[in-house]
Amino acid sequence: MNIIPSLSIDCVIFGFHEKKLKVLLLEYDKEQLDSPNKSPDTFAPYAETEPDGKFPYEKPIGLPGGHVPVDRSINDFARDILETATGIKDIYLKQLGAFGETERVSFLRVVSVVYYALINPEHYSIRGSSLLKSLEWYDIDEVPELIFDHNAMIEKALKRLREEVQIRPVGFHLLPEMFTLTQLQQLYETVLGIELDTRNFRKKIQKMHLVVDTGKMQTGVAHRAARLFRFDKKVYEMLAEQSFSFRV
Amino acid sequence: MNIIPSLSIDCVIFGFHEKKLKVLLLEYDKEQLDSPNKSPDTFAPYAETEPDGKFPYEKPIGLPGGHVPVDRSINDFARDILETATGIKDIYLKQLGAFGETERVSFLRVVSVVYYALINPEHYSIRGSSLLKSLEWYDIDEVPELIFDHNAMIEKALKRLREEVQIRPVGFHLLPEMFTLTQLQQLYETVLGIELDTRNFRKKIQKMHLVVDTGKMQTGVAHRAARLFRFDKKVYEMLAEQSFSFRV
Repeated sequence: MNIIPSLSIDCVIFGFHEKKLKVLLLEYDKEQLDSPNKSPDTFAPYAETEPDGKFPYEKPIGLPGGHVPVDRSINDFARDILETATGIKDIYLKQLGAFGETERVSFLRVVSVVYYALINPEHYSIRGSSLLKSLEWYDIDEVPELIFDHNAMIEKALKRLREEVQIRPVGFHLLPEMFTLTQLQQLYETVLGIELDTRNFRKKIQKMHLVVDTGKMQTGVAHRAARLFRFDKKVYEMLAEQSFSFRV
Repeated sequence: MNIIPSLSIDCVIFGFHEKKLKVLLLEYDKEQLDSPNKSPDTFAPYAETEPDGKFPYEKPIGLPGGHVPVDRSINDFARDILETATGIKDIYLKQLGAFGETERVSFLRVVSVVYYALINPEHYSIRGSSLLKSLEWYDIDEVPELIFDHNAMIEKALKRLREEVQIRPVGFHLLPEMFTLTQLQQLYETVLGIELDTRNFRKKIQKMHLVVDTGKMQTGVAHRAARLFRFDKKVYEMLAEQSFSFRV
């Protein structure tokens, strides 16, 4: 595959599960990284090595990513990476921006365009590419030291996500199709890192006409079953287009 | 200068002058673009040409930009471009994102990282680099057909600016150091493309504690002189850090 060596793409994939915000990381296969031609993969992240031929990380954990093929647009290639890493198409995906410090990769001048995606891990069985040793969800506050500047990428993506949930209804991409209002509130609380007043929160949600009562109730819960809601796709799309103020 | 051929940077420089939002464009010197080595410049935008050796635009007008030097970070190089194009350092500058469609430049696969800047044209005498035939402010609604995908870049930058003025006090970078409340309102009206109710607008501004009465009055105006205000730098920085809701 003909790639642009100076240009890579990295994806910060956020998930929300049991009141925790998570990020999908992978441990690159050191052996394959050191000799990328031994077992070529359609998705070959970070195939280049230091001048001495070794990938300079003992335990290379990082964001799913790779070098941009000459014949793929950066948006299309970001979708390729997402699909390879998760097995899912049609994920909510946004560009965060380019990271371009001269020393961000010690052995190569490479600028990385970073994307972030939102998924609900419960819904998807994450499968990895054959190149990947392991793919794992990490709690956002338990991310280990990553390769290159990937920690900074996650930090910036989280900051952007916090801004975005306040002006667009993106939070809903992180929830199952039917959810309780408590789950919705927990999502906002987790992403924003604050506690919200339940009464005010529900008033705000109601005023936005964004969620619809499904008439169904939770099942299989120890506590009293709560009503299940779904979001109104039309209102959702209108709000996503306009941007709104979700200051609570 | 050693550059990364597959990576360029373009700057959308917005200015606000007499109730108009403007963008700084330049007409590239075709002769120099066709033979860039004849008169090398420290800032050499788009030096590459089509296989037949010609730059494929009859009248190449576009955003100030150029290919990223190997030894400059993308943020630093964006500042270089701004300084070369305007003669000013320390301009409000933000990254918009990367443009990476495969066909955006017909004769080369190049991804461009776009920045946008805000300045007040009254304050600065724009000087161009020796490479540039002409630099000119264009009204935002009178932008001609530009090279590559530069029209789309301006459109996207304008959209981002509209979002940004509603959550950060960035609008103030477009005003002179001292301004009237009418000028401030006109700025918001121009950027947002809507009319605002004067009483509500002033109430909102007052509540934000963002502007301070300088005690001075306008001079040299035909109408009744109005009070001049400046913004409070401390409040400004706090609001810029937090983001706020400027929904009017």
